[in-house]
Amino acid sequence: MYKLVLVRHGESEWNKSNLFTGWTDVDLSEKGVEEAMAAGKLLKEENLVFDVAYTSYLRRAIKTLHYILDTMNLLWIPTYKTWQLNERHYGALQGLSKLTTAQKYGDEQVRLWRRSYDVLPPALTKDDERYPRNEDKYRDVPDQLIPLAESLKETVVRVQDYWEKEIAPQIMNGKHVIISAHGNSLRALIKYLDNLSNEEIIDLNIPTGIPLVYTLDEQLHPIEKYYLGSEEHIQHKLEQVAHPDTIME
Amino acid sequence: MYKLVLVRHGESEWNKSNLFTGWTDVDLSEKGVEEAMAAGKLLKEENLVFDVAYTSYLRRAIKTLHYILDTMNLLWIPTYKTWQLNERHYGALQGLSKLTTAQKYGDEQVRLWRRSYDVLPPALTKDDERYPRNEDKYRDVPDQLIPLAESLKETVVRVQDYWEKEIAPQIMNGKHVIISAHGNSLRALIKYLDNLSNEEIIDLNIPTGIPLVYTLDEQLHPIEKYYLGSEEHIQHKLEQVAHPDTIME
Repeated sequence: MYKLVLVRHGESEWNKSNLFTGWTDVDLSEKGVEEAMAAGKLLKEENLVFDVAYTSYLRRAIKTLHYILDTMNLLWIPTYKTWQLNERHYGALQGLSKLTTAQKYGDEQVRLWRRSYDVLPPALTKDDERYPRNEDKYRDVPDQLIPLAESLKETVVRVQDYWEKEIAPQIMNGKHVIISAHGNSLRALIKYLDNLSNEEIIDLNIPTGIPLVYTLDEQLHPIEKYYLGSEEHIQHKLEQVAHPDTIME
Repeated sequence: MYKLVLVRHGESEWNKSNLFTGWTDVDLSEKGVEEAMAAGKLLKEENLVFDVAYTSYLRRAIKTLHYILDTMNLLWIPTYKTWQLNERHYGALQGLSKLTTAQKYGDEQVRLWRRSYDVLPPALTKDDERYPRNEDKYRDVPDQLIPLAESLKETVVRVQDYWEKEIAPQIMNGKHVIISAHGNSLRALIKYLDNLSNEEIIDLNIPTGIPLVYTLDEQLHPIEKYYLGSEEHIQHKLEQVAHPDTIME
């Protein structure tokens, strides 16, 4: 039996203003930093220890991991960063507010873009300054893998690929793993791990900064999962993400 | 020609109280955090960019690196942590104050322990709670490499080994490298890089939080080196470390 812990980063500067974020590399808000340290405290109180950590190329997830490991006195463990754990790429919606977008396209269209499995948001064009190829950090990613927009379906493909190649072998090797990532890259991973249908994943939301602890069997199939913290706090955070107007990703 | 940047961590909690630190895993002070961010700002203004970073297993160096990379918007680059870049192990002196030690053994003995090349400080015994084997983070280090005390000579051996095996090949491969480490692990590296004699290294002190930029030729021999920042600030920091009563390591 193996343990695995997933954490969605704490509040970012753009979460506060309700903007589509995606691969935009915004910072944690002060509240986000506090959420990360609180997550570290919960993990420490649970006596969980990690041997290796994974996170995305985006600072809000990297810093969430940093504050967690600092609180746990585990800053020294190997930490791997990858674009494959990035948030879903929101295409031309990145930087737009939920409100403006809903006024222009309607609430139902925005809901579809955010929560359907395979509906793509409007794509970037390659001359858009938001095109990831323009950023040095994606220089080693092959052109055909650089997204112009992603539905959750495309996010699942890259997350699953990284899971199978990098993370799963470490877990099978007995390493205790923590992953600090994003609303949709974690939904992608959970869809795969829990073998959820395209419909089931639609209603699954992940609270920010609350460690999700998985127990996995020897084939890495989930036996059990639970959020860490008080019942009341978890309930509050779950309601927060279930509400359509809060916490964009 | 290659570039390489070395940074000694900012002020730690124990620097403030003048205690022998060594492998004791103390945190940065608030001033130390500021020094790290200032170092990041200097590096950014110099338009330096890094592809890969190295640091020790000790939080004061790891956090210095974190604040530097955060300031430079480079948190995403691969970062390798190793015990081989740890501060020199100060044996049974760890946790003692410079003052008490000088009163007991005399100033000259303390100076010898701190600045001679091959004089060992009093060794730990294996039942000492400070013995590194007691810490989970050193579990993969073979017994015969776990120190009970080190002179700079032993520190040079492990730093040079890591340099040759891990860091030098990356630089030769065209990667721009930053190393965030400690007063004595950096003195060890500089002794090796600059081919300094056992006498020459004695008078070499490294200021905290000031990036040291090396230009290396194709065989990684130094062509040039300079500290970043204003002349006046560098001078002030150099005087600080040259003074025997300030900044223990």
